[in-house]
Amino acid sequence: MKMRCMCLMIHAPTDLRVEEMDAGEIGPGQVLVRVGMGGICGSDLHYFNHGGFGAIRIKEPMVLGHEVAGTVAAVAPDVTGVRIGDRVAVNPSHPCWNCKFCHEGLPNQCLDMRYYGSAMRTPHVQGAFRNLLVCNAEQCVQIAPGVPMSLAALAEPFSVGLHAVSRAGPLIGKRVLVSGCGPIGVLAVAAARLHGAAEVVATDVVDEPLAIAQKVGASRTINVAQEKDWVARHSADKGTFDVMLECSGNERALRDGLEVMRPRGVVVQLGLGGDVSVPQNMIVAKELSICGSFRFHAEFALAVQIINEGRIDLRPVVTQTFPMQDAVAAFQLAGDRKRAMKVLLDFA
Amino acid sequence: MKMRCMCLMIHAPTDLRVEEMDAGEIGPGQVLVRVGMGGICGSDLHYFNHGGFGAIRIKEPMVLGHEVAGTVAAVAPDVTGVRIGDRVAVNPSHPCWNCKFCHEGLPNQCLDMRYYGSAMRTPHVQGAFRNLLVCNAEQCVQIAPGVPMSLAALAEPFSVGLHAVSRAGPLIGKRVLVSGCGPIGVLAVAAARLHGAAEVVATDVVDEPLAIAQKVGASRTINVAQEKDWVARHSADKGTFDVMLECSGNERALRDGLEVMRPRGVVVQLGLGGDVSVPQNMIVAKELSICGSFRFHAEFALAVQIINEGRIDLRPVVTQTFPMQDAVAAFQLAGDRKRAMKVLLDFA
Amino acid sequence: MKMRCMCLMIHAPTDLRVEEMDAGEIGPGQVLVRVGMGGICGSDLHYFNHGGFGAIRIKEPMVLGHEVAGTVAAVAPDVTGVRIGDRVAVNPSHPCWNCKFCHEGLPNQCLDMRYYGSAMRTPHVQGAFRNLLVCNAEQCVQIAPGVPMSLAALAEPFSVGLHAVSRAGPLIGKRVLVSGCGPIGVLAVAAARLHGAAEVVATDVVDEPLAIAQKVGASRTINVAQEKDWVARHSADKGTFDVMLECSGNERALRDGLEVMRPRGVVVQLGLGGDVSVPQNMIVAKELSICGSFRFHAEFALAVQIINEGRIDLRPVVTQTFPMQDAVAAFQLAGDRKRAMKVLLDFA
Amino acid sequence: MKMRCMCLMIHAPTDLRVEEMDAGEIGPGQVLVRVGMGGICGSDLHYFNHGGFGAIRIKEPMVLGHEVAGTVAAVAPDVTGVRIGDRVAVNPSHPCWNCKFCHEGLPNQCLDMRYYGSAMRTPHVQGAFRNLLVCNAEQCVQIAPGVPMSLAALAEPFSVGLHAVSRAGPLIGKRVLVSGCGPIGVLAVAAARLHGAAEVVATDVVDEPLAIAQKVGASRTINVAQEKDWVARHSADKGTFDVMLECSGNERALRDGLEVMRPRGVVVQLGLGGDVSVPQNMIVAKELSICGSFRFHAEFALAVQIINEGRIDLRPVVTQTFPMQDAVAAFQLAGDRKRAMKVLLDFA
Repeated sequence: MKMRCMCLMIHAPTDLRVEEMDAGEIGPGQVLVRVGMGGICGSDLHYFNHGGFGAIRIKEPMVLGHEVAGTVAAVAPDVTGVRIGDRVAVNPSHPCWNCKFCHEGLPNQCLDMRYYGSAMRTPHVQGAFRNLLVCNAEQCVQIAPGVPMSLAALAEPFSVGLHAVSRAGPLIGKRVLVSGCGPIGVLAVAAARLHGAAEVVATDVVDEPLAIAQKVGASRTINVAQEKDWVARHSADKGTFDVMLECSGNERALRDGLEVMRPRGVVVQLGLGGDVSVPQNMIVAKELSICGSFRFHAEFALAVQIINEGRIDLRPVVTQTFPMQDAVAAFQLAGDRKRAMKVLLDFA
Repeated sequence: MKMRCMCLMIHAPTDLRVEEMDAGEIGPGQVLVRVGMGGICGSDLHYFNHGGFGAIRIKEPMVLGHEVAGTVAAVAPDVTGVRIGDRVAVNPSHPCWNCKFCHEGLPNQCLDMRYYGSAMRTPHVQGAFRNLLVCNAEQCVQIAPGVPMSLAALAEPFSVGLHAVSRAGPLIGKRVLVSGCGPIGVLAVAAARLHGAAEVVATDVVDEPLAIAQKVGASRTINVAQEKDWVARHSADKGTFDVMLECSGNERALRDGLEVMRPRGVVVQLGLGGDVSVPQNMIVAKELSICGSFRFHAEFALAVQIINEGRIDLRPVVTQTFPMQDAVAAFQLAGDRKRAMKVLLDFA
Repeated sequence: MKMRCMCLMIHAPTDLRVEEMDAGEIGPGQVLVRVGMGGICGSDLHYFNHGGFGAIRIKEPMVLGHEVAGTVAAVAPDVTGVRIGDRVAVNPSHPCWNCKFCHEGLPNQCLDMRYYGSAMRTPHVQGAFRNLLVCNAEQCVQIAPGVPMSLAALAEPFSVGLHAVSRAGPLIGKRVLVSGCGPIGVLAVAAARLHGAAEVVATDVVDEPLAIAQKVGASRTINVAQEKDWVARHSADKGTFDVMLECSGNERALRDGLEVMRPRGVVVQLGLGGDVSVPQNMIVAKELSICGSFRFHAEFALAVQIINEGRIDLRPVVTQTFPMQDAVAAFQLAGDRKRAMKVLLDFA
Repeated sequence: MKMRCMCLMIHAPTDLRVEEMDAGEIGPGQVLVRVGMGGICGSDLHYFNHGGFGAIRIKEPMVLGHEVAGTVAAVAPDVTGVRIGDRVAVNPSHPCWNCKFCHEGLPNQCLDMRYYGSAMRTPHVQGAFRNLLVCNAEQCVQIAPGVPMSLAALAEPFSVGLHAVSRAGPLIGKRVLVSGCGPIGVLAVAAARLHGAAEVVATDVVDEPLAIAQKVGASRTINVAQEKDWVARHSADKGTFDVMLECSGNERALRDGLEVMRPRGVVVQLGLGGDVSVPQNMIVAKELSICGSFRFHAEFALAVQIINEGRIDLRPVVTQTFPMQDAVAAFQLAGDRKRAMKVLLDFA
């Protein structure tokens, strides 16, 4: 008996449709998840608004979404460790475990990665914005009783922030700058605070996201569009910050950040942009590092654990929830940085 | 009794004069070195050709030079460890040991650094291109018997290469790309080979320096102006190289290098340039690092030790030697990459 | 005019006297601190009970104490940054900044270290258990308004815990075992929790200190004298813990810890003991590391900052306070692990 | 048609027999290697002399051997990259690639490892001392033309030395002590020298192996049974060496090594022993690290590459070669440290 489910399929820029699709079958080692909540990510927005980003474009209809949590509705006979009724966050990442990077412990660099809702390969990997999802049992991480599904849906972007922190090295005693307070930025603020940064300063050009950064752990915030002298105030003795988590993808943010970094400071670059101009002599003279951070791996289970234990309150990150049927409205709002941080879709 | 000495003083672009100057007095802890050989560095060339680089410009007459070796002619009564007649390489770096960076073990980031022949601060720190030099005993590292003064004069630029290697992390099993085969580039090739890189590939746009890179340890060389497909040939499976030592300061070299780096690869940036455009998305997606490397510190003694023990033959690096009186001709030749690698001045 | 002050002088094992001494004079760069609170450390107890530990024995009368906080009563004319009336924690560590280890950024390994109340060198370095203390302005770190002097006196042992955490590498996602819940152990628990350990399990053979460990951040505690199967329960798949902070100096604790460590796990050894027997084959086969951690340096200012900001509540660590005059009673109680954790002396 | 081959089977201590066995069949992805040379390892000797070591004992007849090289005689139809006639070194390590440690990039810690000639699991993993060996194509690394089979047989123990060096961190400018000059020790000397150690000092209690250490790269050697003052001579200023590669498994060697290590020095422990007593206070006070190193993984291909390129001359390591039929005599000689270093068996 074939299962059908409802999904959010992108056909072309702004042409996002709620439609029926084949839900697939539950194979060995797999489970069926009744999706509860799903968060709209910046990459979903790029597909929605522009049909992709950089060289990555949708070439065929694709289900969006990779930040979901739900309830297990069925399990294959050979599955252990996941049971019907379990509430789970679903890891959208599916490395091959056979390529050289998987063998080196770098599955996020897998040469044959499958990641929900991504047009990086063709045929595209279909996404998780649907009410029924067949996935591997090992992608499911259990949510603790009492944790709302909406927080569990933050596990994926929070993992991105945690991975960035792990790329930064130990934060003990470190002064951390986080530039760009979109969802990744504020979750990076939370991740840095949780791992002992001595100070976490968040910057943005809009006040509303800065207020949320403050709620999840920023020591102080700077609206760099208004406080024009902020670079000068943080440049004495070659600079103030040990670590920067660059979440904006903005050239000016990166360049200003390099100015206020101390010698040997580490900039972890998460934000995606295009070509950016950097001052080579300053990088050399202060021996700065710029280190890319891409997705995550082991951090997904850690993100769920932290949310389960309530070690940090991420509720301020979720600003709105829409029913699946109102997806287009949800996507339109999600791009408004004054009103929305993380917008969730309710698939239940 | 005042000592006088002869020096090479830059007054304005291309206005380099052999003239007399006060040699100073030997204070406590100091020695007098009769300078033998001195190497012309890229920064010396910038002062000679353009009066400086970037924001650093000569504002008053300045003695050039910071790559020198010589023979100790006198020592203060309190000096131990250095004796008259010792042949020594002179470390041009003089950190304060009192600032926060010195206290953190980063003397090359000293807030009050004095470095021979540098216009970074005003009054400028006078350089070492002179026949008599008063310096601190602790700046002197003894040259082994039989080591020619010309090789000892390479200790400073070799230190720069060694410091870059130390910034790259362990090279065991690593494939290393060195871009830009000026004196720093070829000495970086030597340093990488000496520290166990599995492969060292050197690139440049001129054949002659590549031939020298081959002599000091490159596994193979690529003239990237001719082998246009070199990037494509090294990009499979996300890239070939683990480490890049970027010694050109050239934007194209850096960008091509990022293409051929493996995920998690480390680019050590030594070459000075201006603003360069880098592909932010590639840095993120491959989790690359770009790390500045500036001068050196502990590596100076190591450079002399390696030269003393003859563990690598650096003689191919020195291409010409001119008497001090012919300094202008030496400087003019030093900029010709087809004919000259390291040009030395003989002060004896 | 000579100043006199009252101090706690050890003359021989258990012969601890409250007596008058010369308070010294305030030299350039120095301040006079009216000591408020001082904590009794394990080394103080060793001097009191046994006249020393290992090869370190008191050879002449010595003022004890190195964990003190107080109020600045006078400052030398050249001092900036510290003012009369400032409440300060006093860093008992005084490196030379001239030896090779200081120049490498390892001042805690200084070859000419002076550390309050230590018989490591002769003449001994006199301690800080006195009502008036002349020290260098740079040893003083300001306490925030409202922070009780009793918490400020914890800055030194807390620094030891923070240094151990910095030796362990990043704790993100790590399961941490802390063995031995004396004052250093419970402060190491707090330090690990504050720097993001995914789990902190504290062990001891006495229940009372375990209860305090729980209060300052342990995820769970194990009385290893009672739960005999704890090693077996944590040994599956080669072991459970990524990091161990060994604070007991006990051979059995270390050996059991090695059993429950995962491959590549890191044991940070803080606890002092004598010769201990370790299973070489297990260290090899699981590629475990045992890393010593000694005192601290930069962590002192960090400890005060964390206490100032109230980022963790360390009040449960202080169990009793005695007036200076009752020092002998205080020292006698301080050794009773069922009743006392950190015992303070009030010098005001 | 079933293949039969000749092998060296251990039945009980000293009961080593040349006998016939089933050679197995070539499955998908597999090749048949006609074994040329095989080196006798310390663990082979333990099985031969004592029936095992520690808790690992032979419980059933087992073919010995894991250091072999040979010529490919047949390949499965699906194999690419290995061809009939290829001369190859055979990696004896076969991790599962499915357990958590394999997924973390630590295959040498695999929970389901199969390693030739090991009684760690029962049924034992049969070894490679036989004239015909069926193995996976991916275990084969090609030997360059002209490289003798005898040097290729060193790839496995050389990998162990290279892995130890990779555990030590960068060796640039480091002074390295290697204690115990058995085959692993001298190959560790070679590995350290090749990766740029500033000095490599080898110690042993027998002169003959020290002479071989000198030939493969030791800067100097010390017979610690004769030069009784060697510890005192290397203990000034808290110690001389930055890195120790402990290859003896001897308690005294380790303890003396800790004495002569500088603060923050790293001891890489490769030698297997039993319980050893270490001075806890010295580990703490000098902040020393003892880090286990077990087998290898990526280093096997690197070892073959280095041997192929002739970057170091390992010929002095091989002291004798015996035909397979004289295996008992070979094993008897292999234990005599005055006469034998690495003894090879010829299976051709």
